[in-house]
Amino acid sequence: MNPALGWGTTTFLLLLAAVVCHGHVERQEQWEEVPQLGESRFGSLWPLPQNVVISPVAFMLRSSSFQIVHSAESSAGPGCSILQSAFRRYFEYMFGYTKNQGGNTKKGQDSEVTELQVWITSADSECDAYPSVTSDESCEFPEPMNFLIFFTCFLFACLLNTNLPHKYIVFTVSFCINKTDVQDFPRFAHRGLLLDSSRHFLPVKVILANLEAMAMNKYNVFHWHIVDDNSFPYESTVFPDLSRKGAYHPYTHIYTPTDVKMVIEFARMRGIRVISEFDTPGHTQSWGKGQMDLLTSCYSGENPTGSFGPVNPILNSTYDFMAKFFKEVSLVFPDTYIHLGGDEVDFTCWKSNPDIQAFMQEHGFDKDFKKLESYYIQKLLDIVGSTKKGYMIWQEVFDNGVKVRPDTVVEVWMGSNYQEELQNVTAAGFSTILSAPWYLDYISYGQDWQRYYKVEPLAFKGTDAQKKLVIGGEACLWGEYVDATNLTPRLWPRASAVAERLWSNQNVTDVGDAYNRLTQHRCRMVARGIPAEPLFVGYCDQEYKGL
Amino acid sequence: MNPALGWGTTTFLLLLAAVVCHGHVERQEQWEEVPQLGESRFGSLWPLPQNVVISPVAFMLRSSSFQIVHSAESSAGPGCSILQSAFRRYFEYMFGYTKNQGGNTKKGQDSEVTELQVWITSADSECDAYPSVTSDESCEFPEPMNFLIFFTCFLFACLLNTNLPHKYIVFTVSFCINKTDVQDFPRFAHRGLLLDSSRHFLPVKVILANLEAMAMNKYNVFHWHIVDDNSFPYESTVFPDLSRKGAYHPYTHIYTPTDVKMVIEFARMRGIRVISEFDTPGHTQSWGKGQMDLLTSCYSGENPTGSFGPVNPILNSTYDFMAKFFKEVSLVFPDTYIHLGGDEVDFTCWKSNPDIQAFMQEHGFDKDFKKLESYYIQKLLDIVGSTKKGYMIWQEVFDNGVKVRPDTVVEVWMGSNYQEELQNVTAAGFSTILSAPWYLDYISYGQDWQRYYKVEPLAFKGTDAQKKLVIGGEACLWGEYVDATNLTPRLWPRASAVAERLWSNQNVTDVGDAYNRLTQHRCRMVARGIPAEPLFVGYCDQEYKGL
Repeated sequence: MNPALGWGTTTFLLLLAAVVCHGHVERQEQWEEVPQLGESRFGSLWPLPQNVVISPVAFMLRSSSFQIVHSAESSAGPGCSILQSAFRRYFEYMFGYTKNQGGNTKKGQDSEVTELQVWITSADSECDAYPSVTSDESCEFPEPMNFLIFFTCFLFACLLNTNLPHKYIVFTVSFCINKTDVQDFPRFAHRGLLLDSSRHFLPVKVILANLEAMAMNKYNVFHWHIVDDNSFPYESTVFPDLSRKGAYHPYTHIYTPTDVKMVIEFARMRGIRVISEFDTPGHTQSWGKGQMDLLTSCYSGENPTGSFGPVNPILNSTYDFMAKFFKEVSLVFPDTYIHLGGDEVDFTCWKSNPDIQAFMQEHGFDKDFKKLESYYIQKLLDIVGSTKKGYMIWQEVFDNGVKVRPDTVVEVWMGSNYQEELQNVTAAGFSTILSAPWYLDYISYGQDWQRYYKVEPLAFKGTDAQKKLVIGGEACLWGEYVDATNLTPRLWPRASAVAERLWSNQNVTDVGDAYNRLTQHRCRMVARGIPAEPLFVGYCDQEYKGL
Repeated sequence: MNPALGWGTTTFLLLLAAVVCHGHVERQEQWEEVPQLGESRFGSLWPLPQNVVISPVAFMLRSSSFQIVHSAESSAGPGCSILQSAFRRYFEYMFGYTKNQGGNTKKGQDSEVTELQVWITSADSECDAYPSVTSDESCEFPEPMNFLIFFTCFLFACLLNTNLPHKYIVFTVSFCINKTDVQDFPRFAHRGLLLDSSRHFLPVKVILANLEAMAMNKYNVFHWHIVDDNSFPYESTVFPDLSRKGAYHPYTHIYTPTDVKMVIEFARMRGIRVISEFDTPGHTQSWGKGQMDLLTSCYSGENPTGSFGPVNPILNSTYDFMAKFFKEVSLVFPDTYIHLGGDEVDFTCWKSNPDIQAFMQEHGFDKDFKKLESYYIQKLLDIVGSTKKGYMIWQEVFDNGVKVRPDTVVEVWMGSNYQEELQNVTAAGFSTILSAPWYLDYISYGQDWQRYYKVEPLAFKGTDAQKKLVIGGEACLWGEYVDATNLTPRLWPRASAVAERLWSNQNVTDVGDAYNRLTQHRCRMVARGIPAEPLFVGYCDQEYKGL
């Protein structure tokens, strides 16, 4: 279930020499009785690399002479679409859309960095594969002949004093970069962000923009909570009625197969996995509109009320449907994992239904509806297991004692006492990811990013082996109160705090230093077109140009 | 101070006849245990008119044949720029940017509304004047031959079932409109919104977009908290150093005289007054950067600390400066009122300064720094009074017993026990506006618009005469945590709740009905390009197209 698609160690070779440049002095309001804004010795790096030494020696880069090239030793070359896409993206981050002006390309003054050589060291560059939980995201940038990255590890553009561009000659933009030594790798392999496209439909444009922002923050999993009670925007080719009848609108508020492919490819180019969630047996009201008899009919006494409850677990037709549906899903979403949900199953409707009551008696479940839930989930897991996918589930499935495969990933989301849950889940030998303290839909006045930042995912009682089972975490932005109008600024830079917690070393806990770096990092996101909201009073050299 | 610029009763004449149309059925999620979304009998009207009767009889409008014209009896004609601007704006709201296609203009089927006649009934149309607190914003739309609006009272486009446009023939958009009888006028004359361009600079584009949204919500005062401690973006022609040294950036983060003019004219076209606030003597740190000796030098014992406190009230140069500065301001901002601030003066620095100590003794103020504050404010009020402007002040000026002119407007902002403050201010005979319960910068999870909506401004002990002194209220969005990235969605539709409270009848208090109308109203704002955030789960036919 965890195929080793590892990208190997990826290496960029950077040729450097010396020039004097001014540092960027962040404006500091001396009288502000608030987080004191200053300059971090790590500049604007976010998330902070595992090891970094920034020397005061500075070099210059000019758009007219700077190139990103494949190193001769690299196992990847111009045919590697992921790298070509990254080259373009980072060149544009650095220099904007200024194009090289042929005539000006004077080679190498001594003071100048003219080339970033990218050296993929693994034998197989795997340029056409999908990222996975075992992908190697480490990189080096050894001083003085340096380089950098891959995928989520591309931080070259973060090292630049991007707040100090100045027109060098017409059509040339120049920057300073400090001589820097970096070795980097993520602390956790699973750094996810959940977006919910059911409570509100999220246009593809919004999803892509947030994938872009995720890459800037080294997130590597997009947990796509694609359908839920409220709407079913996923267009299934096998069951087209699901979105035709269950979406908010059958044309304007759906994800076509092409949309889904585009999202997955856009994510792949940025080292991001797309894990789709099709949550059952609860949270499925919208499924019932396009699929007759899938949901349980609720009763009042002997009469159906006309309303429906969770998926009906006692009908063979339910499992026939699930088998066909998840077969399609397993082919549409290339990631080796599917999230099956399993949270918040309300037993009221099941209890009211006479057929289900009879079924319970037949199977000796007595009045224990958790047994019925387990019955359903186990049959579902068998179905999904047969597609060769691994699965993730919300914690209730574990809590309710459902028998799951050993490689199941349990997502801990319940706020109260999540440490104990982590302890229990890992004691049972399951891998787990933590999202409980990172429900970003709960907003409040002030700098709540600090609260997210201060979470230590491994602060629970357990052996080293147990701690190793915590493979990461997820920031969740549930959709009740967000859509295209407000999602992006509400998410960033609050989700950046979680990103650093999941990437950087455990000892990176200085909130003041984080504030200084994050303030610059959010301005960098703004400069790149992401409307990340401000942490506090102040300004960016380049303010957001949209509305 | 309140010149009667009243616009008089304004009348639109609308020719109607009958056709059958479908009503728009709002999608209702039956299973949602939440505010039950349904159809209001008032459709999507927001804020609710004082008197409205919507008949089920429906008429059709087609872009190809519909016109807005000046009635022959109107005192205004094609030369009235405000009306021409309104005609264009509302035509575009109704039909988008579809243009009349010459050939198709077949006149008047029986079922069709072909003309909206605008009839300004007052003798003086005052098309070139600025709106004021005494402007007449009433309007009628008498059934069956109707008409409508002015300024903030233009609600024709709200009566349309705008969610049901369908292409009639190529290049023609048609709509249904119900036969409707409306008499309308605002409950309160001052319906303001405060934006703060000092904590964060707000690009002119953002301000204009929010003026547009204000007009859609019948706000008629833009309270521009233009400068504060953090930055001084107002470019003064007399004291250019104020913004050159006090703005976040002297070119990119300032409002030039042209910018200011544009804002004022854009507002005027929408019946919105622009009241600028230049807050002193506190909240003035940024002023000190470009104006030597304006602020008080703070001391530690006998030595200056190098930091500065409020405006220095003991120097003649201070008042010379203020006289020149406010003379400029009084010419730049045409509104008859200026907001002078006066809130939150911290006495610590004044107390530390030996010159001020000596001055206090000289003037017999003893240790009562409120007396010094009053001394300053009274001199300032005399200066501003000489410019023939009226002034508004924050409540502390009243609380501290400063002697102010009888026509001063006191703004009540302190959260605790604002009812008692309203009682005291009005008992002393002052006009007042309420903002305390409407600090929209304090965000929280869920539907906090309901909290704003439930406020009753006159729910304090006082005589009828006292209640009449409450001339309105203001929603305040202070700028600590908002800038161009997140201001607009954070403001709307939360500020819409305040707008209805200030416009509609006191008995309009049904939160459920408000929810139904506001849900549609926010989608209307979205369709018109304002990224107003969602109230709860659901969708708009036209989602926001930006990011």
